[in-house]
Amino acid sequence: MKLLEDRIRQDGTVLPGNVLKVDNFLNHQIDPQLMDELGAEFARRFQDAGITKILTVESSGIAPAVMAGLHMGVPVIFARKHKSLTLTDNLYTAKVYSYTKQVNNDISIDRRFLNPEEKVLIIDDFLANGQAVQGLLDIAATANIKVAGVGVVIEKRFQKGHKMVADAGIQLEALASIASFEDGQVIFATDK
Amino acid sequence: MKLLEDRIRQDGTVLPGNVLKVDNFLNHQIDPQLMDELGAEFARRFQDAGITKILTVESSGIAPAVMAGLHMGVPVIFARKHKSLTLTDNLYTAKVYSYTKQVNNDISIDRRFLNPEEKVLIIDDFLANGQAVQGLLDIAATANIKVAGVGVVIEKRFQKGHKMVADAGIQLEALASIASFEDGQVIFATDK
Repeated sequence: MKLLEDRIRQDGTVLPGNVLKVDNFLNHQIDPQLMDELGAEFARRFQDAGITKILTVESSGIAPAVMAGLHMGVPVIFARKHKSLTLTDNLYTAKVYSYTKQVNNDISIDRRFLNPEEKVLIIDDFLANGQAVQGLLDIAATANIKVAGVGVVIEKRFQKGHKMVADAGIQLEALASIASFEDGQVIFATDK
Repeated sequence: MKLLEDRIRQDGTVLPGNVLKVDNFLNHQIDPQLMDELGAEFARRFQDAGITKILTVESSGIAPAVMAGLHMGVPVIFARKHKSLTLTDNLYTAKVYSYTKQVNNDISIDRRFLNPEEKVLIIDDFLANGQAVQGLLDIAATANIKVAGVGVVIEKRFQKGHKMVADAGIQLEALASIASFEDGQVIFATDK
């Protein structure tokens, strides 16, 4: 998506360790107009997928997920992150390891919001190692619901999340796909 | 706002301890269409306030704040919650006590997103004891920026947050204002 790639080139910063900092429009300060455009693009790409609900994880996934939900006319659920719980009777939970923060968290969704007939779309801001998406896939599997697609704002295609979703045979749509970083510059897959 | 009051009557659950559970449309599962309507209403109520930026706190404030930002044409910043940090050179931080979770957290905003000329609108999902709003007011004071208003989706008018904001002389707009709970029913201020 050219609009997003241009914005990343303009406002993104590449930090050591292949970290792309986009906290001025995506995951700390948010540009609502851009989120609206991203939501419309997700809706376009998944328009024939029969999505009934969108799942994401707090916090950075919420803005693009809610805009996608607005354009698709479906509810959004954000999984909550927390330390491992002892009481999980009414929750679907999954373990998620954060490479950025180097901590293990549980994520959870209230059971009463996931019915067997759902076809869900998973949305997140980044797909890198794929831990958050894997956690949501685990919850979907436990809840016995169909995952019709995974949509991410930015993927680092060279990390293992892309392959994990592709190998699972799930439609994956990344609105910007980073092929590599070279000399502190972002090389998009579309540049090649 | 009648649309919201009707939704709370229909889908909200009053739990012991004056807790209103609205996790089926506001703070776990989200209704994007409703958020869009709430955002438009915030924009209408603060249209003459000269707002340049919206501040909220992760996670439940993000959806209504981003929709308000979309309708007002301004960026949104969500403050991040975390354990107290030792390194805060580039951050404005404030302490926030959560009555619900009975924990102290810091919230923080990157300094480079708050310029002295900003006029900010603080948005959150709930105003009860006002701890989160107070934290954002503390950050605004430290950053020496003007707070032009506080907008909340639901306030419990009988708790101390309402008085705290009103006493500070700040325009407060609650889209639904709960006067009391009686026999497990929500009594709105507009009912009286």
